[in-house]
Amino acid sequence: MIRVGIVGATGYTGLELLKLLKRHPGVAIVWLTSENSAGQLFGDVFAVPPSLGHHSLVAAADADLAAADVVFCCLPHAAAQAQVAAALAAGARVVDLSADFRLHDPETYERWYGVPHVQRELLSRAVYGLPELHRTEIARADLVANPGCYPTSVILGLAPLARVGWLSGTIIVDSKSGVSGAGRKPSLKTHFVEANENLSPYSIGRAHRHLVEMEQELQMANGKWQMADGKSPIPDTQYPISTPQWQLIFSPHLAPISRGMLSTIYVTLPEEVTEAQVREQYAAMYAGEPFVYVLPAGQVATFAHTVNTNTCAIGLTFVPDARVLIVTSSIDNLVKGASGQAVQNMNLMFGLDEGTGLA
Amino acid sequence: MIRVGIVGATGYTGLELLKLLKRHPGVAIVWLTSENSAGQLFGDVFAVPPSLGHHSLVAAADADLAAADVVFCCLPHAAAQAQVAAALAAGARVVDLSADFRLHDPETYERWYGVPHVQRELLSRAVYGLPELHRTEIARADLVANPGCYPTSVILGLAPLARVGWLSGTIIVDSKSGVSGAGRKPSLKTHFVEANENLSPYSIGRAHRHLVEMEQELQMANGKWQMADGKSPIPDTQYPISTPQWQLIFSPHLAPISRGMLSTIYVTLPEEVTEAQVREQYAAMYAGEPFVYVLPAGQVATFAHTVNTNTCAIGLTFVPDARVLIVTSSIDNLVKGASGQAVQNMNLMFGLDEGTGLA
Amino acid sequence: MIRVGIVGATGYTGLELLKLLKRHPGVAIVWLTSENSAGQLFGDVFAVPPSLGHHSLVAAADADLAAADVVFCCLPHAAAQAQVAAALAAGARVVDLSADFRLHDPETYERWYGVPHVQRELLSRAVYGLPELHRTEIARADLVANPGCYPTSVILGLAPLARVGWLSGTIIVDSKSGVSGAGRKPSLKTHFVEANENLSPYSIGRAHRHLVEMEQELQMANGKWQMADGKSPIPDTQYPISTPQWQLIFSPHLAPISRGMLSTIYVTLPEEVTEAQVREQYAAMYAGEPFVYVLPAGQVATFAHTVNTNTCAIGLTFVPDARVLIVTSSIDNLVKGASGQAVQNMNLMFGLDEGTGLA
Amino acid sequence: MIRVGIVGATGYTGLELLKLLKRHPGVAIVWLTSENSAGQLFGDVFAVPPSLGHHSLVAAADADLAAADVVFCCLPHAAAQAQVAAALAAGARVVDLSADFRLHDPETYERWYGVPHVQRELLSRAVYGLPELHRTEIARADLVANPGCYPTSVILGLAPLARVGWLSGTIIVDSKSGVSGAGRKPSLKTHFVEANENLSPYSIGRAHRHLVEMEQELQMANGKWQMADGKSPIPDTQYPISTPQWQLIFSPHLAPISRGMLSTIYVTLPEEVTEAQVREQYAAMYAGEPFVYVLPAGQVATFAHTVNTNTCAIGLTFVPDARVLIVTSSIDNLVKGASGQAVQNMNLMFGLDEGTGLA
Repeated sequence: MIRVGIVGATGYTGLELLKLLKRHPGVAIVWLTSENSAGQLFGDVFAVPPSLGHHSLVAAADADLAAADVVFCCLPHAAAQAQVAAALAAGARVVDLSADFRLHDPETYERWYGVPHVQRELLSRAVYGLPELHRTEIARADLVANPGCYPTSVILGLAPLARVGWLSGTIIVDSKSGVSGAGRKPSLKTHFVEANENLSPYSIGRAHRHLVEMEQELQMANGKWQMADGKSPIPDTQYPISTPQWQLIFSPHLAPISRGMLSTIYVTLPEEVTEAQVREQYAAMYAGEPFVYVLPAGQVATFAHTVNTNTCAIGLTFVPDARVLIVTSSIDNLVKGASGQAVQNMNLMFGLDEGTGLA
Repeated sequence: MIRVGIVGATGYTGLELLKLLKRHPGVAIVWLTSENSAGQLFGDVFAVPPSLGHHSLVAAADADLAAADVVFCCLPHAAAQAQVAAALAAGARVVDLSADFRLHDPETYERWYGVPHVQRELLSRAVYGLPELHRTEIARADLVANPGCYPTSVILGLAPLARVGWLSGTIIVDSKSGVSGAGRKPSLKTHFVEANENLSPYSIGRAHRHLVEMEQELQMANGKWQMADGKSPIPDTQYPISTPQWQLIFSPHLAPISRGMLSTIYVTLPEEVTEAQVREQYAAMYAGEPFVYVLPAGQVATFAHTVNTNTCAIGLTFVPDARVLIVTSSIDNLVKGASGQAVQNMNLMFGLDEGTGLA
Repeated sequence: MIRVGIVGATGYTGLELLKLLKRHPGVAIVWLTSENSAGQLFGDVFAVPPSLGHHSLVAAADADLAAADVVFCCLPHAAAQAQVAAALAAGARVVDLSADFRLHDPETYERWYGVPHVQRELLSRAVYGLPELHRTEIARADLVANPGCYPTSVILGLAPLARVGWLSGTIIVDSKSGVSGAGRKPSLKTHFVEANENLSPYSIGRAHRHLVEMEQELQMANGKWQMADGKSPIPDTQYPISTPQWQLIFSPHLAPISRGMLSTIYVTLPEEVTEAQVREQYAAMYAGEPFVYVLPAGQVATFAHTVNTNTCAIGLTFVPDARVLIVTSSIDNLVKGASGQAVQNMNLMFGLDEGTGLA
Repeated sequence: MIRVGIVGATGYTGLELLKLLKRHPGVAIVWLTSENSAGQLFGDVFAVPPSLGHHSLVAAADADLAAADVVFCCLPHAAAQAQVAAALAAGARVVDLSADFRLHDPETYERWYGVPHVQRELLSRAVYGLPELHRTEIARADLVANPGCYPTSVILGLAPLARVGWLSGTIIVDSKSGVSGAGRKPSLKTHFVEANENLSPYSIGRAHRHLVEMEQELQMANGKWQMADGKSPIPDTQYPISTPQWQLIFSPHLAPISRGMLSTIYVTLPEEVTEAQVREQYAAMYAGEPFVYVLPAGQVATFAHTVNTNTCAIGLTFVPDARVLIVTSSIDNLVKGASGQAVQNMNLMFGLDEGTGLA
């Protein structure tokens, strides 16, 4: 039995994680933390059956870090830095669901997130937890930075093109997300009457933090990622350094849906590439993947394809005259976009079958 | 032109009121107040076209009360007391959308609302603003207490029975409301992810404040209302004093809908009353009413019947064996349940056709 | 491995059943039938990942009944009769999700469903598949009639009272259901634009077919059920025959929610019964139950308590003056109200732990 | 009083039209037609108050065309052709809400709609009913082809650029529509359970019929439109003939919302154009327009900006590095995208103030 602790368990990713872990045959929950609800039961915070609700919540300071083999950290960015360090120091392996360890370059992190990174020395230990790109490193890691939801849908949607250098020019990413992606803290924007029967773009263009995460991973996939100081991101890796020949325009939209996510991505393909070659490339990259599936020609991905599952569904529509490939990439933002992927990463880190508990 | 001021204009009833008044041929908006958004435009607070959005917001202290012929007060209960008094003192007539002047008995008000009533002397001037019951008094009033949304649906649904003394025993009122009834202030309960795909009872039994408002009006309709001190509620009225022979169980439910309301009401009819007599009684009471309509036999009221209109739709279903009459009563909580009814009251107070601006 | 066949797999109960069974460690799917989609894959009919979508669909006539240890029949009422008989004849055990074998009295069935019952001889073999009431019989049965969704929520909500004879008079059941309960066949009533932002009562009073199912089971629980011919429903049982002293008024409402169900039930308790005794009775009846939980005093059941789980959540609110107990009973109509309960029944029939695959 | 007839009144555009016209001070409804519901009342078909519901429905063959000054034709494409011709022949002016008279080139119509155009001689009389582009012609027309919903949002969003020749290359149009745009006929795609909590792309790329309508109008705005035979679309007009230097990629998405529409449009601007110039151009074009408003810098259009109004809200976001202008253009698909615009056109045709009845 893997002994699991969850830091910051009372958000939607914590809830989803607990649901998934209760179904997992190889784990035991040892503690859940919450600063606001310490001393209460999980069932006081969420309307859940007693099998979930009976767990008690403790302050992070009272959690026995040493009792956990793995710690899932579900805190917001910035707040996660210290908790991740503490858990690692106590000997636990960590899956961090925040943005704190996703970006290899701390300068980029500080510029986009507006807070200092005080655990820079841990960055080189952190592996970006997208199994389809970094499976081997995840299996060896003690710190996995679980990807953001938008990046998961976009990176999986574009990685087959990035790998073979078929990205170029301006790539339009028009994403639509369910409201749970905005967290559980009430706000006017997520007030029912404001969000219901509404659909709103926000942080469009090159304004959303997830942009840099997408570009880092797609450039690395393309062998073209570089840090601000011009050095290679990960010592002794094979990634050459060059200037990217493409950039993303990323326009997230809030949709009146509790969970789920769809990215509609528009890429102008190089002249010489055929639709058949594109399909082959996606098929080749995702052939053995348990959680990514490419839809048959003529089909597009929808929220419904993936909701409540750990899968990513990808549709490919080619517009010959314009040479535009429209990639539709769907995930459940709380599962493959957060907690399901975190469990997938844990499985890899502990040598279990990758899909355990995720069927 | 009737010069209109709105106090507390930045909630959903304020928004709805402004929309209705802009369509009204006989009014001019002179000022809108907001404590939190003073100095901003209405369009900074709501996503609305410029015809609504260009209005500026001022603090209540800066509103020229004397410039208004009528003041709509859209503040929460307790906060309304002083503003209503000030507007009356300045010579304006007032339609108050809070609960502060709905209950004739200040003791009852204080017990249920948990705050003192410091404008008791105004209570005898206040008329309960349900035109179908108090049209004549409203036309003469300078202070109209606009009914609550649940009470509007329930009182209109039961008044024909109350008038002829056909209420008895325990009457079950199972109401369903859209989320806008809970106001615009964000809370966990009204957070999109919590309210969406959910339906929740709350304050069920005899716990909701609107209960006393319903009972006051239905007992008065029945000639049986009394104050705590045993005196008649309104000096020199004909209402006899007696103990009610019936009581309400009232169970509101929050439904994942922006606006609208349905009350499903279960009344056990006296032995001698026939279904035909019941239908006749409803038809008689609402025959000339512009905004209440009784559905044909076999039909039930739904949210759809009244949304975005100032109407109340009433369905009557009789269950012979059990002698139970099921009344389904639907209103739009923001229109007939709040701002539309407020405009209807203003029309009556100023001698206009009751339906002006409400088509 | 239990070999499973599903007849009529392309409705929402079929989809939910397949999802649950794929997660069940002890079953293998041997065939799925569909008359309209025979020859297609399950993934052609639903937007699902390949793990579900790869299953092929055959016409019922082409299904190898003998290859299945258990057949789940997900057909509409009337259509199920012949298929159930055929599966039993082939030696399979059957869980029937239709209404065809729920009512012990074929006359009652024919009156309410308007079709002949041509498999009357199977009725005495059929066990009503509510484990909380009939666990022992289910374990021995080869034909289990899986309960309707509304009856599951109402019977579980009232059975503790029925058992000790605390039901009397007119009991008001005001139920709210998600739209999936109406099936997958498009209709105006379930068209998105008609159902969204709407909430509609239908078949209220004593008009809905599920009423007789509720009364049968609650009367049996009370020892008071009888068939139209005055005989005992099940030969050699202990059920005495008497006239019920109570009746249900049942008002279903369609809510703009995909899945879930809440029944708000109003019972007038006998004079001598205290709130504490009521709580004790519920606690006693459901103490060992894995899938029914009674909420603490002060809490009410909501859709959120049970969605996507096989549980029933029950809240108890007592209104002392009126002696009315308000029972709020929530289930997911597709899980505990249909496919989850069907798997629970299968587990019992095959000697597995009752909760296998339902965590 | 303008005497109005509505052909095909029982769809969502018919319902919206009737609601708007009842509020219009200068019209009288003389008849409504419906083939499926002839002989019924409007209130038998929709849950509406008696003021709308009392209108009776007749078959089109029984409608007295000569009694109408103007006929609104709300039939599907193809079906409208004959009815429009008949109404014109009877001397009525016509606003046709179908696609039958929107495309100047009948070959293009027949290729995209797959049916013959049998009223070709009327095409030269038809004016495309977008007042912001064709106000003068509309005022003189007896046949106005009311624009499609998607085209209205896209043409208004791009016309200021088209006029000055700032469109070039591939323009990405990612649109999101409420479900009412798909009409009232039930289908699996618009079944509540399928559409709710889902968001689906459809007909993406260059596959949707509205594409040609957008390109016709934007090319005409640009002076670059031509018919298949190389002739100028409208005899004696000043439109030169040339090949367009840009093309649209158009990806509609179905969102779980009853009404509303948002187009997120990505245009790469010419090198020499500045953001300030773009803002000036939009401001200039829409300065006097009563129903189009450009949002301040930093704001994006959402469904909420325009729902239940006849307005179009336009947001402009410039991404300097990529030289991409993101236009967010919102309308209510049933109002400015259909029935409201139809009333606006009628007002122009009859010399009324353009906004009459549309406040």
